[in-house]
Amino acid sequence: MISAANAGHLPAYGSDPWTARATAELSSLFGSRGGIYFVFNGTAANIFGLSLLVRPFEAVICAESSHLNVDECGAAERVLGSKLLQVPAPDGKLTPGLVASRLGGRGDAHRAQPRAVAIAQVTELGTCYTIRELRDLAEFCRASELRLFLDGARLANAAAHLGCQLADLAAHADVLSFGGTKNGALGAEAVIVMNEELGTEAPFQRKQQMQLASKMRYLAAQFVALLEDDLWRRSASHANAMAVRLAGQVGGLPGVEIRHPVDANAVFAVVAADHISALQRDWDFDVWDSAGNVVRWMTAFDTTEAEVDAFAAAVRAVTAAG
Amino acid sequence: MISAANAGHLPAYGSDPWTARATAELSSLFGSRGGIYFVFNGTAANIFGLSLLVRPFEAVICAESSHLNVDECGAAERVLGSKLLQVPAPDGKLTPGLVASRLGGRGDAHRAQPRAVAIAQVTELGTCYTIRELRDLAEFCRASELRLFLDGARLANAAAHLGCQLADLAAHADVLSFGGTKNGALGAEAVIVMNEELGTEAPFQRKQQMQLASKMRYLAAQFVALLEDDLWRRSASHANAMAVRLAGQVGGLPGVEIRHPVDANAVFAVVAADHISALQRDWDFDVWDSAGNVVRWMTAFDTTEAEVDAFAAAVRAVTAAG
Amino acid sequence: MISAANAGHLPAYGSDPWTARATAELSSLFGSRGGIYFVFNGTAANIFGLSLLVRPFEAVICAESSHLNVDECGAAERVLGSKLLQVPAPDGKLTPGLVASRLGGRGDAHRAQPRAVAIAQVTELGTCYTIRELRDLAEFCRASELRLFLDGARLANAAAHLGCQLADLAAHADVLSFGGTKNGALGAEAVIVMNEELGTEAPFQRKQQMQLASKMRYLAAQFVALLEDDLWRRSASHANAMAVRLAGQVGGLPGVEIRHPVDANAVFAVVAADHISALQRDWDFDVWDSAGNVVRWMTAFDTTEAEVDAFAAAVRAVTAAG
Amino acid sequence: MISAANAGHLPAYGSDPWTARATAELSSLFGSRGGIYFVFNGTAANIFGLSLLVRPFEAVICAESSHLNVDECGAAERVLGSKLLQVPAPDGKLTPGLVASRLGGRGDAHRAQPRAVAIAQVTELGTCYTIRELRDLAEFCRASELRLFLDGARLANAAAHLGCQLADLAAHADVLSFGGTKNGALGAEAVIVMNEELGTEAPFQRKQQMQLASKMRYLAAQFVALLEDDLWRRSASHANAMAVRLAGQVGGLPGVEIRHPVDANAVFAVVAADHISALQRDWDFDVWDSAGNVVRWMTAFDTTEAEVDAFAAAVRAVTAAG
Repeated sequence: MISAANAGHLPAYGSDPWTARATAELSSLFGSRGGIYFVFNGTAANIFGLSLLVRPFEAVICAESSHLNVDECGAAERVLGSKLLQVPAPDGKLTPGLVASRLGGRGDAHRAQPRAVAIAQVTELGTCYTIRELRDLAEFCRASELRLFLDGARLANAAAHLGCQLADLAAHADVLSFGGTKNGALGAEAVIVMNEELGTEAPFQRKQQMQLASKMRYLAAQFVALLEDDLWRRSASHANAMAVRLAGQVGGLPGVEIRHPVDANAVFAVVAADHISALQRDWDFDVWDSAGNVVRWMTAFDTTEAEVDAFAAAVRAVTAAG
Repeated sequence: MISAANAGHLPAYGSDPWTARATAELSSLFGSRGGIYFVFNGTAANIFGLSLLVRPFEAVICAESSHLNVDECGAAERVLGSKLLQVPAPDGKLTPGLVASRLGGRGDAHRAQPRAVAIAQVTELGTCYTIRELRDLAEFCRASELRLFLDGARLANAAAHLGCQLADLAAHADVLSFGGTKNGALGAEAVIVMNEELGTEAPFQRKQQMQLASKMRYLAAQFVALLEDDLWRRSASHANAMAVRLAGQVGGLPGVEIRHPVDANAVFAVVAADHISALQRDWDFDVWDSAGNVVRWMTAFDTTEAEVDAFAAAVRAVTAAG
Repeated sequence: MISAANAGHLPAYGSDPWTARATAELSSLFGSRGGIYFVFNGTAANIFGLSLLVRPFEAVICAESSHLNVDECGAAERVLGSKLLQVPAPDGKLTPGLVASRLGGRGDAHRAQPRAVAIAQVTELGTCYTIRELRDLAEFCRASELRLFLDGARLANAAAHLGCQLADLAAHADVLSFGGTKNGALGAEAVIVMNEELGTEAPFQRKQQMQLASKMRYLAAQFVALLEDDLWRRSASHANAMAVRLAGQVGGLPGVEIRHPVDANAVFAVVAADHISALQRDWDFDVWDSAGNVVRWMTAFDTTEAEVDAFAAAVRAVTAAG
Repeated sequence: MISAANAGHLPAYGSDPWTARATAELSSLFGSRGGIYFVFNGTAANIFGLSLLVRPFEAVICAESSHLNVDECGAAERVLGSKLLQVPAPDGKLTPGLVASRLGGRGDAHRAQPRAVAIAQVTELGTCYTIRELRDLAEFCRASELRLFLDGARLANAAAHLGCQLADLAAHADVLSFGGTKNGALGAEAVIVMNEELGTEAPFQRKQQMQLASKMRYLAAQFVALLEDDLWRRSASHANAMAVRLAGQVGGLPGVEIRHPVDANAVFAVVAADHISALQRDWDFDVWDSAGNVVRWMTAFDTTEAEVDAFAAAVRAVTAAG
């Protein structure tokens, strides 16, 4: 673009002040030495992040219930060419024992070689790893020559729940993501590379994976906004509080059985199928299982107490009726 | 998200009124029967679009100078698994003759099988195919069992230059893109599938290629804005006019040789290397060739006549100084 | 190669009389209308065969214990780009019910779309589908818009066990393989495409997957030999009989628990870990499970009764010793 | 397989004495420290070999006329996911200058990053690099952080022509292949990894690329035979001599123009199209160019002087006739 260098036009592909500022702030908050890379959505954050950790013949150990495994239309298999070694994980969390169960066949050329472990914090089932659990898992990974990727689409909710810094979570990962989209942004995720060496391929991997924004300032600006005055933490804390409020109101009702610890902004519950249908007439939420009686109720940065109370009242009415 | 169905929250993944409106308007404008798919950037529009047209053993014929070949860090090769059959193309345009030169080896299992032709309108060298040229190429493709993909990152500029409707251009393609980003949008491209049958895989291909936006309304809204009162055409016409103005002012200068027809918003020129360096002290533009004396001067929807005149004066000053 | 056309040199890449003969005989034996394609090994037979049935966003339903899933170092994921949807399968066999359990999410762009079912006949656990079971599964697949791939690395053993024709097995598959390597050949597998339309891509897929032999006659000749006087069936029957003989001799021993029906040439047994070690001093066989007390004892076309008896005696001695 | 460990059965997947012997002999002949890997065909040797040298966003510089680029149905693009940066190369040879012409865009995320150079020795046009040319190219590569892959499908012919040891050629490559198939073997190629570090991924890459033979001894035995008493060199020398004899007889004929230096076992010639048709009635050879008047006449280890003389006489007769 011909334009005087100091005028209103900004350079493309990340060489602009918004990207510089968001990058600097995130690097400092997370303690990253390998670079900050903005991408467009959560699936891309997972795949691009993992592409820095594995080669095609190397496998990624993940929970059967993980977004990576279930909800990305096979992006991992196509873009990475790698196998996902799945583990059934109660409450969505991996443990050293569960990871160890998928380490067979190392050194055997017939087997995809386990090389990375992918976890989500918050998990897909609305639970949080404690700092202790994270540390144990990270230590096990290091001792087992496994790299640790952390899907942080809801990392803000985890930090809010645990009352910790983002760096306290990041310290245990090799690469992680920090989600903007689920925390009020228009659509932006940051991939954070903790280790300098792992970052060398990142600019090229991002571009080849079709995640380089020419006007990157619009992604970066979303993070500048989220970081200002810790908006990210306030938004996440609020969403978490609304989920707790909801669980408190519906948890004791006959016909409603809460499923997992409510550590963040999701309430999973077992409810009779006809009650679910009745509720879905007026309310929008997901049925989680194929059997059709586990629901996922999400709260967000802008869910109000009145909304929670109205919804809880609706649950009460429907389940009382029948 | 728990939310009353008629409240402010909007459903994700494209089931919102903005996406519905942008989709309906684009379908009608382009005469598409296979669907409209929003993606995040121009590279993704090319790769996703082509993924509807070829299998990995099938090849895509394209200009050597094409963005697809040169500027996408090998995304085509990785994501499609397909070979690009490149043709040196004067002024960036393919012709039936140039395409025919790459059709050898059909039916021979040793050769990647030509199956699609990818062109750009406006081309990467700032030139436009005439409607006649497009029609001839499309007819040749149809007769040769080749599908035609059109990279429309600057399609608005082409329609403005030719004074035609978008549908007049789209009619010759099987799949094409319509770029928002280079025409003033924040970052959004639409992939337009002309033919119903070619669209069946599109929702899955887009997701697996990491291009499905959860808050798709923010992509769609950019197109709603561009389509309103033909903003897209006014912006593109203005950018084109500014390029013509620039070419008119610098074209006759000693030491400046205009390279390609100025059909859109780019002026390519041969300039001495030290003049280029001198200009780049105050102005931001690309050097195009590895030899270092072809420059690309781009204009945009917001380039002013004063900016053009100031830049042309700078060129005059630098080249006069010798 | 310059050579008089009627001299000793034979044309390459399958245009030779050996390939023509093996192809004609196999087409007739299997009732194939889509072509016969020789490849180099069993992994290639599976991946190439499936590549005719799925696109990258489509998934393959298979048994957790399948060779495809466990023993191919992620070739499916890399070469197809497709997800394997795994099902725990007792005795290694899929059923309509097990397949149905993985059909969730059809039409949902977040999910890899189930499109093929891959089974092995004989299975990896030494069991055979009955003709009835095959028919039920094939009917379920057809009704569910699923294609059926059959890994026939040990198809000869299945036909020998069931006393049926190869065509009786092939009739239920869309694409299948017929293994030479495990039935006495040097190294050759045939991929059999039952349906004409599915075969159109096959020559190109085979070449791109690096499975086209220039001197294809040496692969073809192995099948000519196997088909002559039904050598394939005699070899397989013998191997099966040796496994039954072995199971008969060791099945009743204290400390040896046979694991699956012995339908072909494999005997699976639970044996104490120290007994396994003792046996492995003199005999070569695989430990199957990571816990280390399930063994797989294979017999072959050239296993003798004396070898079986000697091995059974060794098992008896080791387990008796305590 | 149950079998007494010291009986006639041999362990699978390369743990047999034939593989051990061929591996030891080849390692010593080539001076390899990274391992010897047998694969099934020449395409696989190229792709597997390159997979040890590049990642998907990295590009391979090769001659436009290379087998890798032209004759492998896009295997490189699909299996590696990498772009081939092609260079028109007179006589099929790359030079430092030609390689340098494709090094633009290093460090720019929009461009596939040049990382390997792939050459063939003998080239696809029947020419040989001199030792000096190889050394210059290798030095340029090392200085430019480029790895060098050498397609040795006809390496024996090159060593015979140059009168050098195989190690003299291998010393300049990072990974190379040594072809058996084109030198009289049934079908086997060896991939030779010169450097220890580059070999760590090789067992897994070979398996995932579907090139692991269970009965590997049959591949290995072909190399044992070729190496015995330097059979490989005698076969190749003979083939080369037959090509020189042919070129000598037909080179001076009116209507026959030899195209490239005849360094190995191929003679390229320009001949009128109707003369080609006349010859092809009785003789089997390839027409090389799409225009239809360049032919490739190949000789082999078993081509006789009488065959050459008869063919030369046929050429003489046809061209004399007019």
